[in-house]
Amino acid sequence: MQLDQASTEQIREWESALSAEYEQHKAAGLSLDLTRGKPSSDQLSLSDAILGVLGNDLSNDGGIDLRNYGGLDGIAECKRLFAPVLDVNEDEILIGGNSSLTLMYFAVLFASQMGFGDLGKGWKAGGDTVKFLCPVPGYDRHFSVCEHLGIDMIPVAMNDNGPDMDQVESLVKADSSIKGIWCVPRFSNPTGIVYSDDVVARIAKLATLAGDNFRVFWDNAYAVHSLSDNAPKLASLMAAARKAGTEDSVYLFGSTSKITYAGAGVAFVGMSAANLKAFKAHLGMTQIGPDKVNQLRHARLLKDSDGLAEHMRQHAAVLKPRFDSVLKHLNEGIGDSGLLSWTAPQGGYFISVDTLPGLAKQVVAMAADAGVKLTPAGATFPYGQDPEDRNIRIAPSVPSLEEIDRAMQVFVNCVKLASVRQRLAN
Amino acid sequence: MQLDQASTEQIREWESALSAEYEQHKAAGLSLDLTRGKPSSDQLSLSDAILGVLGNDLSNDGGIDLRNYGGLDGIAECKRLFAPVLDVNEDEILIGGNSSLTLMYFAVLFASQMGFGDLGKGWKAGGDTVKFLCPVPGYDRHFSVCEHLGIDMIPVAMNDNGPDMDQVESLVKADSSIKGIWCVPRFSNPTGIVYSDDVVARIAKLATLAGDNFRVFWDNAYAVHSLSDNAPKLASLMAAARKAGTEDSVYLFGSTSKITYAGAGVAFVGMSAANLKAFKAHLGMTQIGPDKVNQLRHARLLKDSDGLAEHMRQHAAVLKPRFDSVLKHLNEGIGDSGLLSWTAPQGGYFISVDTLPGLAKQVVAMAADAGVKLTPAGATFPYGQDPEDRNIRIAPSVPSLEEIDRAMQVFVNCVKLASVRQRLAN
Repeated sequence: MQLDQASTEQIREWESALSAEYEQHKAAGLSLDLTRGKPSSDQLSLSDAILGVLGNDLSNDGGIDLRNYGGLDGIAECKRLFAPVLDVNEDEILIGGNSSLTLMYFAVLFASQMGFGDLGKGWKAGGDTVKFLCPVPGYDRHFSVCEHLGIDMIPVAMNDNGPDMDQVESLVKADSSIKGIWCVPRFSNPTGIVYSDDVVARIAKLATLAGDNFRVFWDNAYAVHSLSDNAPKLASLMAAARKAGTEDSVYLFGSTSKITYAGAGVAFVGMSAANLKAFKAHLGMTQIGPDKVNQLRHARLLKDSDGLAEHMRQHAAVLKPRFDSVLKHLNEGIGDSGLLSWTAPQGGYFISVDTLPGLAKQVVAMAADAGVKLTPAGATFPYGQDPEDRNIRIAPSVPSLEEIDRAMQVFVNCVKLASVRQRLAN
Repeated sequence: MQLDQASTEQIREWESALSAEYEQHKAAGLSLDLTRGKPSSDQLSLSDAILGVLGNDLSNDGGIDLRNYGGLDGIAECKRLFAPVLDVNEDEILIGGNSSLTLMYFAVLFASQMGFGDLGKGWKAGGDTVKFLCPVPGYDRHFSVCEHLGIDMIPVAMNDNGPDMDQVESLVKADSSIKGIWCVPRFSNPTGIVYSDDVVARIAKLATLAGDNFRVFWDNAYAVHSLSDNAPKLASLMAAARKAGTEDSVYLFGSTSKITYAGAGVAFVGMSAANLKAFKAHLGMTQIGPDKVNQLRHARLLKDSDGLAEHMRQHAAVLKPRFDSVLKHLNEGIGDSGLLSWTAPQGGYFISVDTLPGLAKQVVAMAADAGVKLTPAGATFPYGQDPEDRNIRIAPSVPSLEEIDRAMQVFVNCVKLASVRQRLAN
C-alpha cells in the first residue's frame, strides 16, 4: 500500500476494505492491553526462588544483624553484585529500597534544594530557574519528577545513536540554567536504541560546557536486559567521565525491578565518592536505611555477574517471541508503505512507532474503540505534548503471544485506516 | 545524699568517695552503650518466622500479583491490620515501605511545597516562612526533617500529660506561620509519657485556632509498645478530630520497625480521605508502589489485632526487666536526693532524665570517659540546644541486663559526682 502513488479511487477502495475490517475488530469485543512496561507473571516466576532463598540464614559479609536499623548505603554483597552493572567502584554505589524512581526523585530534590555538600550549593539556592534537557520520545516518569520539583523541560531530538548531541551541546553552552539531562542509555524508553560510544563520550564531557554542577541522570534501567547475547553494548559513562575529569557530573541509576520482582526488588545509584557523601548526608534525613534483608535475598538469588547474565537469558526467552510478533505484524502489515516508522530494539521493554504526522492520538483512540488499549499518545513527551502527534509506545511484555497477535492485527488496521482517511480528507 | 542540707565538709567527703569510685570505673575498661533506640537481637528473633511465612503462597485479598508494580497505597490485608493501630478507617490508611520517617519526610515536603490538592496550596507557595512547634525534649529525627526542609522550630514545654497546651494554643493563635506540631503521643520519645485525653482533645482542635492547613504530625511510633497490659491508653486523635470537624488537620504515622524487623518492616500513615488523595498524587511522583510482598509477610505473621497484641507481649517480656534495672539503679542510687528527676515509662524505648541545670553534657562526657556511651546531651532539642543542659536520654533496649547493671552503676556515680563537684565550685 503506497498512498503516494495510488489513485483516489484506489485509496477509496482501501478505505472501504479497511473500514470493514475495523468494524469486524470492533464487533469481536476484544479487551487487550499493550500499555504496560512491566514484567509478565511468567517473568516474575523466574525469581520465585527468592521467597525462600534465605532459609533462616542471614549471615553476611559485614557480620551485622541485617534485621536491625542502619546501613544507609546497603549491604556489601549487593554492592559487589551491582557495581559492575553500572561500571562504578564498590565505594561508588548505594543500594536502596525497591524503587530507582525514588532515588532519582531524591537526587533531583537534593541537587535542586539542598546542594552537593563540598561540591556546591543547590541549583535553586538563589531562587534560580532550573532546566533539564529531555530527549524525546522519553520516559514519562522522568518528566513528572521535573514537573513535581519545578524544573522546566526542554525537549531534544533522539536519534538512532542517542540524543542529538550537536543540539544538546549547543543548548548547554548557551544556557547555564540547564542543569541536567535525562538519559535511558541502553534500550532507551521507548525507542529501544543504544547510545553509541561517541554519544557516551560526548555526554561525559557536557559538564565542561555547562554551568556549575551540571548532572547527567543516567537511568540505566535496562542495563542487562537484552533480547540476545549479540545485542549492542553500552560504553561506560563513568569510565568516559573519569577520562574527561567530569566524574562528579554523572549519577547512574539501576534496579532489579525488571530482573527479579518489579515491586519488591532493589534499586541502586552510582556516583563519585564526593557526590555519594553529599547524597548520603541528605538521604539520611529521609530514612535510617534500606531493607537489608531483601537485599541479601537478591545477592543470594543472583549470586554474581554470571548468575545475573544467566537469569536475564531466561527473561529474554520469554520476551523475545513477543517482540518478534510485534515486528512481524509491522513488517508484514505495513512494510515499506511509509505509513509508519518503527524501531527494532534488541532489548528493553518497548517498541516505539511514529505514525504519519497528526495521527498518533487518532490511532490510539481507534484502537481503544476496538478494545486494544495503548499508552496515551503524547505520554512520551514533556507535559504530554508530542508536537507532531506521531509517537506511540507499544509494550508487549505482559500480553500472551495470542493476545499480541490479535492486538497487532487491530493496531495495523488502525494505522492504515487512519492514514487512508487522512489522505482522503486532504 | 541531700546536698542542700549538707555541710561543705560532708560534700567534700562525698566528692572524695565518688571520685575514688569513678576512677575504679574508669580503670575497669568498660565499653557499654545506652544510646540506641532500637530492638535487641532477642527482640528481632521474635519475628524470625517472617522469613518463611509466605512459603510460595502469595494469594491475597485483591487476587493481584503482589510481585509486580503498583498498589501505591498498599495491600488490603495490611490496611485491615494496621488501621486499628492508628484508629482510622481502612480507606484512610496508606501502607508504605520500611520507613515511617520517609513517609513523614514526604508529608512535610509535600505540605510545604506541593500543597494539599483540593484542600489548598503548599505552606511555602508564597515564599512564606513556616514554623513547627516541637515539644521538648523530643525526637531528633523530627527536628532534622524540619531543618532539612527549611522549617523553623519553636520548642514548647513537655509536661507529664503531653505538651503544655496553654503555651501551644497561645502560640498558634498568635502566629499563623506556625503550620505544624510534632507529637509522639504514646510513650513519648524520650520522656515516655502518654498524652492525656484532654491534651488529645485540645490537639484535635488546634486547627480551629491556627492558620490555613495546619497539620498535626502524630508519630504514633509506640502505639502498641507497652511494657504491660495495664499501661495507659491513648485517646484516638482521629475520633477527636472528627468530633471537632478538623479531621483534615491530622496526619498519623506508625510502623512495625519495633514490632517485626527494625530495618525490614512496613510503615503506614493515616489521613482523611481528602488528605490521602492529595498525598497519593504526590507520592506517586516518587515511586510506583511499596514492597507488597513484604507487606503480605507482615499480614501473615501478625494476623490480626490479637496476634499483634500477643506478639507485643513477647517484646515486653524482653524489655521490661531492662527498664526495671535502670529504674532500680536510679531509685536506689539517687532516690529523692533531688540530683536527678526521671520518668518511669510504661512503654516505648526510652527513659529520660534531667540533671541539675548545666550538668547534662558533663555527665555524658564523664560516662564516656568511663566507657559508657550515652546519647549526646542536647540531641533531644531542636538544633541540638538544650537551653538548661539538663536532659539525657537513656535507651536500655540493646544492652544485656548485665551490661545495663554495670552501665547504670557508672551513670549514677557520674550524676552524683558531677552534682557534688558543681556544688563545691559554686
